[in-house]
Amino acid sequence: MADYRKIDTEKLRSFCEKVFASYGLSAGDSGVVTDVLLRADLYGIESHGVQRLIRYHNEIKSGLVDVNGKPEIVHESPISAVMDAHKAMGQLAGVRAMELAIKKAQTSGCGMVSVKNSNHYGIAGYYSNMAAEKDLLGICMTNSEAIGVPTFGRQAMIGTNPIALAMPADPVNFSYDAATTVVPRGKLEVYNKNSKPLPEQWALDSAGNSSTNAAEVLQNIIKKAGGGIAPLGGVGELFGGHKGYGLGIIVDLFTAVFSGGLTSNYVNITPGLNGICHFFMAVDYGVFGNKAEIRKNISAFLQELRNSRKAEGQERIFTHGEKETEMMASRIKGSIPVNEKTFREFLDIAAAQKVECDLV
Amino acid sequence: MADYRKIDTEKLRSFCEKVFASYGLSAGDSGVVTDVLLRADLYGIESHGVQRLIRYHNEIKSGLVDVNGKPEIVHESPISAVMDAHKAMGQLAGVRAMELAIKKAQTSGCGMVSVKNSNHYGIAGYYSNMAAEKDLLGICMTNSEAIGVPTFGRQAMIGTNPIALAMPADPVNFSYDAATTVVPRGKLEVYNKNSKPLPEQWALDSAGNSSTNAAEVLQNIIKKAGGGIAPLGGVGELFGGHKGYGLGIIVDLFTAVFSGGLTSNYVNITPGLNGICHFFMAVDYGVFGNKAEIRKNISAFLQELRNSRKAEGQERIFTHGEKETEMMASRIKGSIPVNEKTFREFLDIAAAQKVECDLV
Repeated sequence: MADYRKIDTEKLRSFCEKVFASYGLSAGDSGVVTDVLLRADLYGIESHGVQRLIRYHNEIKSGLVDVNGKPEIVHESPISAVMDAHKAMGQLAGVRAMELAIKKAQTSGCGMVSVKNSNHYGIAGYYSNMAAEKDLLGICMTNSEAIGVPTFGRQAMIGTNPIALAMPADPVNFSYDAATTVVPRGKLEVYNKNSKPLPEQWALDSAGNSSTNAAEVLQNIIKKAGGGIAPLGGVGELFGGHKGYGLGIIVDLFTAVFSGGLTSNYVNITPGLNGICHFFMAVDYGVFGNKAEIRKNISAFLQELRNSRKAEGQERIFTHGEKETEMMASRIKGSIPVNEKTFREFLDIAAAQKVECDLV
Repeated sequence: MADYRKIDTEKLRSFCEKVFASYGLSAGDSGVVTDVLLRADLYGIESHGVQRLIRYHNEIKSGLVDVNGKPEIVHESPISAVMDAHKAMGQLAGVRAMELAIKKAQTSGCGMVSVKNSNHYGIAGYYSNMAAEKDLLGICMTNSEAIGVPTFGRQAMIGTNPIALAMPADPVNFSYDAATTVVPRGKLEVYNKNSKPLPEQWALDSAGNSSTNAAEVLQNIIKKAGGGIAPLGGVGELFGGHKGYGLGIIVDLFTAVFSGGLTSNYVNITPGLNGICHFFMAVDYGVFGNKAEIRKNISAFLQELRNSRKAEGQERIFTHGEKETEMMASRIKGSIPVNEKTFREFLDIAAAQKVECDLV
């Protein structure tokens, strides 16, 4: 970890809050955006954490993100709503939309909110976990710039389109959060940095064949020259690639089609507009009976999975959310490893925004 | 196709209806069960079609299926219900549960019905398509006997646990229906029959390592000696196997945990009880705005996917449900290919039930 430095978690939080306030966000909103970003680092998901500060900085400066944009409810029923984020920060639209879904679930049993004209909102799991913290089932999805190639195609048409689902359980909530492509773009970047060939079935070249050349695939993605990342299940149908492709379509249905926003293939192509769409759902699982009993039953099943026999050479079977919960426990009162490149970006942002950087 | 004979679709329907009536089902119920079974053959999904008649015959004779079992609603809210199927045929529980979910969606915007103590119910897509035929979004899941191995495990703990989702669209509905394991059991059986090695990443041996030996894997599954089928994404985490594993858990949550029934690892292990659980959901997508506009937008997106650039050597990109719709159009007024082994089973069943078999 020579390329990383450890930064005190609370100092990092305070720095990010000051940076977001410097763009004109209220103290409350700066706290919300920072909490979402930092949660990714606390979970150990560096790709979606503070290393994205520079990206948000650039998107605010270029006008892709409008710090004065006020998310607006444009359609509503007792169990549903559609929100126009008006180019607000994705985290602000996201937290408000999930709060609304939670409120509807608490009064009607179920709440679904579809959001258009938003921006990157961090990890989908943050929002599904908001519902779980209120003892509800939470679901969250987002579309994103097209980088995934349909089965039998050669053209990126669908985002990494993650699906997150969180369900209260003991001793640790079930919290699923995964792209519907086989891997996210960040994984290709890591292989490229290390000059390693990609595993087969991860990515496609410009002709739509499986490619192990990370540099070429990434270049083609940027140039929109064809190819991209395979859906979960890989290239073609042999390993179920058509299943991941279908899940990606489902995410665009809930996020973009139900909100009247842009599907993945139109995200990030109009100058000045990302146009990302999200979906948030909360269900009071008490609509299916006694909550204590349901919670006991899901907890028992998860424990049985963890207790089941391990593969040769493996010591542990995880359930989803365990790794992140353990990582967060070790980091919340300690420090977060920050890449030196990211740290230098912090210094640039601090200088540009005239914000004190006391992280050294 | 030397091992297949073509049987007139309406003759086959009539024969199946007579067989189910011979067990004591009403004419109406016999028609419902037959329609679900036959639909699989019409869609080209032979594994879930009339070739299962012998299985239902045996399950009724052994008492696993109770033809006198009456599905009962044991918990209800305006948007939800829990059904105890009381060992009725899965198709009868399934159709009634989806009809209830549809009714709730038509009055409350959303209906969710979780079902316990049921049996095999055919293809999940039949039920999600019931909602789509009423211009609603439909979702359906079922658990099944544990055959899928958790990531880093060696013990089958989760069923093939399919997820189906149907959304009205033009000119053809979007209809996703896929196991959350990389393949269903039937695929291993086909490789075994042809003495072909399995592709890597499909299945695991008794030590939890990837295995290409179909015969051994199938034997181990039957003996519960360890190993089984990999989750969608394959063995380990490299190709996203933890994602398919998580989706399998989600299916058990909605089907078994919300209904208070048996999770996959307890299905088919108690003598006299399959104990399969299902989940049905319908959403009036008008809760998100103008239905005609939403339908137009999903149809446009699906068309853009189909029109996108094809991989080298590929002539067509499909959206989910297209293949099945085209197959059904060619078979509905014609004939269905029936395996000779299946046909001989028909003759045995007809003799045992004293039902006339005029299929020759």
